[in-house]
Formats: sequence, C-alpha cells, structure tokens
Amino acid sequence: MHTNIVKVFGKRPRVRFRTRTQYALARARRGGYNAAMPSVSLSLGEKSYEVHVANGSLKSVGDFLSRTRMGGRAAVISDTNVAPLYAASVLAGLDDAGYAASIHTIPAGEQSKNISTVEQLAAELVKAGHDRTSFIVALGGGVVGDLAGFLAATYYRGIPFVQVPTSVMAQVDSSVGGKTAVNIAAGKNLVGAFHQPRLVVADPLALTTLPPRVGREGMAEMVKHAAIARPKSLFPLMQLADEIDIGFSLTTIQRLPEIIADNISVKARLVEQDELETRGVRAFLNFGHTIGHGIEASVPYGELLHGEVVSLGMRAALHLSRKHAGLAEQDERLVLNALRSIGLPLTLPEHVDAETVMEHVAADKKFCGGAPRFVLLEALGRPVLSDAVTESDMREALELLKSPC
Amino acid sequence: MHTNIVKVFGKRPRVRFRTRTQYALARARRGGYNAAMPSVSLSLGEKSYEVHVANGSLKSVGDFLSRTRMGGRAAVISDTNVAPLYAASVLAGLDDAGYAASIHTIPAGEQSKNISTVEQLAAELVKAGHDRTSFIVALGGGVVGDLAGFLAATYYRGIPFVQVPTSVMAQVDSSVGGKTAVNIAAGKNLVGAFHQPRLVVADPLALTTLPPRVGREGMAEMVKHAAIARPKSLFPLMQLADEIDIGFSLTTIQRLPEIIADNISVKARLVEQDELETRGVRAFLNFGHTIGHGIEASVPYGELLHGEVVSLGMRAALHLSRKHAGLAEQDERLVLNALRSIGLPLTLPEHVDAETVMEHVAADKKFCGGAPRFVLLEALGRPVLSDAVTESDMREALELLKSPC
Repeated sequence: MHTNIVKVFGKRPRVRFRTRTQYALARARRGGYNAAMPSVSLSLGEKSYEVHVANGSLKSVGDFLSRTRMGGRAAVISDTNVAPLYAASVLAGLDDAGYAASIHTIPAGEQSKNISTVEQLAAELVKAGHDRTSFIVALGGGVVGDLAGFLAATYYRGIPFVQVPTSVMAQVDSSVGGKTAVNIAAGKNLVGAFHQPRLVVADPLALTTLPPRVGREGMAEMVKHAAIARPKSLFPLMQLADEIDIGFSLTTIQRLPEIIADNISVKARLVEQDELETRGVRAFLNFGHTIGHGIEASVPYGELLHGEVVSLGMRAALHLSRKHAGLAEQDERLVLNALRSIGLPLTLPEHVDAETVMEHVAADKKFCGGAPRFVLLEALGRPVLSDAVTESDMREALELLKSPC
Repeated sequence: MHTNIVKVFGKRPRVRFRTRTQYALARARRGGYNAAMPSVSLSLGEKSYEVHVANGSLKSVGDFLSRTRMGGRAAVISDTNVAPLYAASVLAGLDDAGYAASIHTIPAGEQSKNISTVEQLAAELVKAGHDRTSFIVALGGGVVGDLAGFLAATYYRGIPFVQVPTSVMAQVDSSVGGKTAVNIAAGKNLVGAFHQPRLVVADPLALTTLPPRVGREGMAEMVKHAAIARPKSLFPLMQLADEIDIGFSLTTIQRLPEIIADNISVKARLVEQDELETRGVRAFLNFGHTIGHGIEASVPYGELLHGEVVSLGMRAALHLSRKHAGLAEQDERLVLNALRSIGLPLTLPEHVDAETVMEHVAADKKFCGGAPRFVLLEALGRPVLSDAVTESDMREALELLKSPC
C-alpha cells in the first residue's frame, strides 16, 4: 500500500493521516458519508430478509435487529483480524438496543473453517448460556460467515443468525443466499446447510481497512456479477479499482453503498428464483468457477486467493463463450480490461500443471451428478448453462491461460 | 434370555430352534407373517412421507424407494451390531430395484454419535463417489438414525435419506419426525438439524433379534405414546411385554405391525402439527423426559438406558400430574402397571443423588429459554404443558422415586 502521509495543518495539528482513505474518512465523519442507505430485499417467503448497506452501519446492527423484532441473546462470532477492529462497535450497538451478547473469536484464516471449530464454538456457546432462544451474529469475512452460519444452522438444530460481512467477497457474495458450510479433508464446503440469515448488515467503510490484495480478490466476484447481469456496472468497478492502491476519495466512499448494493442485487435475484440451487438459475453464479476451482485445488494453499482463480476462470470461460455461445469479441475484451484494471491475474503461473487442473475439474464435475454444466455468456448479461464444452475445449482454454493477456 | 431348545422332529430333523420366536418365525415363513402391512402418512407439505410397517420389509427397502421415485446411488450407514444381521438383505433389495449402493459401518453404541464420525463418514462417502445426487439409508437403531440423518442433512448441504429402524425405540420414536443430531462434550444432541426422511421402512421382525433389555427399553416410549394419546393400547403392550422373555408367538408376530404402526401414528400426528417444535404440541412427546433426562445425566453412561430413565421420569410425571393436573389414581396405576409388567424400572437406584439430578434438570430447563414447561396428564390421552411444577415439587417426586412402587 502507498502510505501518503497527509498532514492536516490548522486546528488539529497533531492528527496525521497515513492514507488518503483515512483523510477522506475523517472528513466524511464531519460531513456525512452516509447519504446513501440502500437496501436489497430477498423475497423468500417466510425466510425473506433485508440486506442493509450503509456506511457506518456496523454500530447499528443492534438497531437493525430490533427493527426485525429479533429476540434473545446474541453470540457474536468473529476472527482475530476483524474482532480487534469492529467487535467493540457491534457489541456497543447490541447493548444500546438491549441485547445481551457474548463474543467468540476464532483464528483468522480458511484453516478455521472446519468441523472441530464448530464443535468448539458450540461448547463455548453452551458455556456462555446460549440455548435455542439465542441468535448468532457472524462478524467477518467469508470464513466467519460460512462457519458461524453453519453453527447457527445446527446449534440446537438451528437458531437464527445475522450476517455482518466485512470483506468485499462476503458483502457482495457469501453473506447473501444462505449457503453455509465447513471444509473437510476430502474437500471444501462438503459439510454444510442452506440456512438463510434473518438480516445482513454490510458496512462499506469496513472495506477501507482491507489489505489491497484482499480487496481486489473480492472485486473478482463483483466483476462476475456485472458480467452475468449488470454490464454497465463494470465502469464504476474499474474506477473503484483505481483507488485501491492510492486510497479512497470521499466521493467514492459516498458512492460505495450504492455500488455494493447494486452488485448484491444480482445475486439476490438469482437466489430468489432458485434458493436451493435445484433449478439451474443459481448456477449462473458459478461463471468462471469451474476452471477456477480446478486451479484453486492445484496450487498450494494461499498461493492464489479465491477471487484470483475466479479471475483466471473467467478468462477461460470468456474464451469458451466466444467459441460456443457467440460472445462478441468486444464484450470479452471489456471484462478482461476490468479484471486487468483491478489488478487481478489473467495468466496462469508457469508451474501450474494443466493436467492436474483437469483432474480437479473432472472431480468437480461430479458435483452435479456427472452432468456437464458450464456457464457461458451469449452476451454480457446473458448467461446460459451449456453442455457444449468438451474436455478438449477446457484443455485449450488452460493453454490459453498460459499465454499473456 | 430363556433358551428354549425346541426340537422339530419329522421331515427336517437337523433344524433346532433355540427360541420360541425362531420357531414361530420359521412357521411364519411358510404360513405368511405378513398379513398386515399398515402404513402411517406424515403430511408435511412438500416434505410429506410414508412410514411402512411390515414384517420382512427389510428386503423391500429398494422396492419402496423406487415407488417414491427416489433416484441416485445409495450410501447405506449401519453399525457393527446391525450390519452383520441385515445389511445383506437391504443391499440385495436395493440391487434388485436397480440402485447402486455402498455400505459404511460405524462401531455400535452412543459413543459413535459424534461430530468426528460425521466427518469420517463424509470422507468415506466422497471416496465412494457419492455427490449431491446420492441418498443415505440409515439402517439401525437410534444412534445410526440420528447420526446418518445429520450426515444427510449436511453432506453437500443436504441430500435425501431413508430411515430403516431396527430397534423398538427407533421404529416408534426416533426414525419419525426428522430430528437428527450428534452429541458434543457439552451435551447430548446439541448439534443437529431438522431433516425429514423421504421414507421410513420399519420391519418388526428385526425386533425379535433385540436383546430383551433393549426391547423393554424401547417399550418405554411406546407406553409414553399410549399414555399421552392411546390409553387403550396399553393392554396389547402388556401382552407383548409378556413374550419378550419367553419369545414371541406367531400370533404376536402377525399383530406386531399394527401395534407398531398405531404407536407411530401418535408421534406422526403431533409432528404434523408442530414440525419444528415451536408450537408446544410436539413438546407433549417429552412426557416423562424432564426428570428422565436429569436422571440420565446423573448416572455413569450405560448404567440406565434411555427408556429406563424415561420409565422413572414417567412415574415422577404421573405423581405430579395427580398433584397439579387432576389425574385420577386408577389412571396413574394403569400406566405404572404397564411399565412394571414390561419390566421397566420404577425405583431410583440408591446411589443416585437427588441434588445432582436436580442440577441437571435445572440445566435442561434452559433448553426452552428458561420457561418452565412440564408435560402433565389431566387424564390418560390428555396431556397439557404446565408451569405449575415447582422445584420443590420435583424434589418431592425424586423422593418418591426412592421408595418402592
């Protein structure tokens, strides 16, 4: 990260801002960064809920909860990265709204997303006196959301929970739609449940504290949403990307809630039509993920982040979309430009073996009962499920990924 | 168990039957034990299913499955007690019906009902090539049903499953209603899910191979069902109990399916009204369980079986029902006689400390958010949820349990 030391002279001579973002935030706190408070509704019958996207909303989780008439005590689950930054705000807000709460912190990172952490957390919740009348608040990124969501799905056979996502990926993707899971040695997300949250509260200000690589990673899913359903939103995403390194301007911070909410609505509409991923519609969200997952499973853990392999997978899927679904060249180029401007990888690292990737892709295909389903784009905003993609097509696409873009 | 060696002279001189039951079964195989094939329907909207109760139905599980149009491959989960007796029949029936199947056996006993067994089984299923299009067959008693059901609820975020209960307890109680769970160190059944089976196939012939103590134990839940909703069925239960030690007659074996199905229907009707135990109705099934659970948690594991503590808990609940709900003395006596004739315990072992039991009862009350709910009977077949039972009432009832009945 660049560290632009911005000295503010005048009335508060001692305040130094290390980044443009911090400067903008400080100005924003005086001037109001919270003009936009969009919310996205998920209409799922008895399981319907709202996603509130507002700057500074972390402190208002308790308030939002009491508006949904949630009762009982709160068990806040967070991790060692996020809790030090935001747990105090969330707990204070819960307290203000009259909710007794306990806080439970897990080690940050994917390695916590396992079945024994679920067991440990369940034991902690029992010790803290939580029963079937309590609810869970998942405060953190995708790992915390998936894990705390699965705990909520199974503790006393299911208690309500609230998602408070703090990463880009969690805000626009994993916190919405009710998929919860843990990893087992045999594979990622193999044990889980569909369990919709009662409420999602996304605070875009939390994104300003993310390490740039993690911010970029999450934007891969934003580009995916844009490509499958909101082509025009690719441009604001590119603008946003420009500021990841130099820090966010006040204008950008003020626009973030609308950009995030608009992006969330893409997933929300697909989830509404296909809550349990049985009708094929929700599968559109797998654009870029078939080959992406294959790559993810082929490299040592942590070498490539999930969003980074999705970026590679999208490049492959765009190529296959041109071949099999009539995607126009300028549409392919537009998405590739967006990914490039965000700083996401488009070229497969030299050492990644295409055969290994293909083996993992083949194993992943079993995921859908052996039926070959590949998400392609006929045009930007027009995804289709295709069975036209052959193994040799995928090998060709992997070859392409080896060449610079 | 009595071992009546019954020699059958004449045409098949080498066949010896060790028990009356075996003799009756052999005669039955020639004469037809399967006159009655009752089934109980659970009407739960999209989640509706049938419970088929028929002698010899273990070999027809595949057939029943194809009638429900179940697709995919089967993962049969069983334990080291049940698999050697029945897995071959079930697998052959699945094969006849065109289902590919794998078999996965866990060590028999409550200690297998934990979260790491779920993880191990999930890994085995992945290895056997099962994905979200497969289904699970739970073949065994309550432990197998609860565990395999929870695996089905969470494997790939939920796949269908079928209950094939082989103990009295599992047939009349745990296989029906969709409660699945595992134990954690902090408590029994604390991590679980509501996941209804697609089908239940109960073969009463399997009950003839149970150790007598396990058969008696299961009958405690049958008496409970009778007491809360089918008073008249107490008499056939007593008759049935008479034969546990001496072996079952052909007549009894022929009547078993109807007795079992009638008993299942008590639970089925309550589950239909209150699937997720949120309306209080399903809680009637907890008759005898509040103090029963307290006793269960106060003795070393295995000293008293679940049905045995439920028997003790029912004696306490009957006493409290007379005190607070106007239960008539002759009704109390009738249920106590049934429990006694079955050979279930009615007196608390000397060494059990009433204070320890009270502590566990108090902890268990938290289960319902601190609201004191005690199931009492106004009359046989007329349960009520009462908040009239005080701590000192419960102490008094425990005192009573120390005295002979």
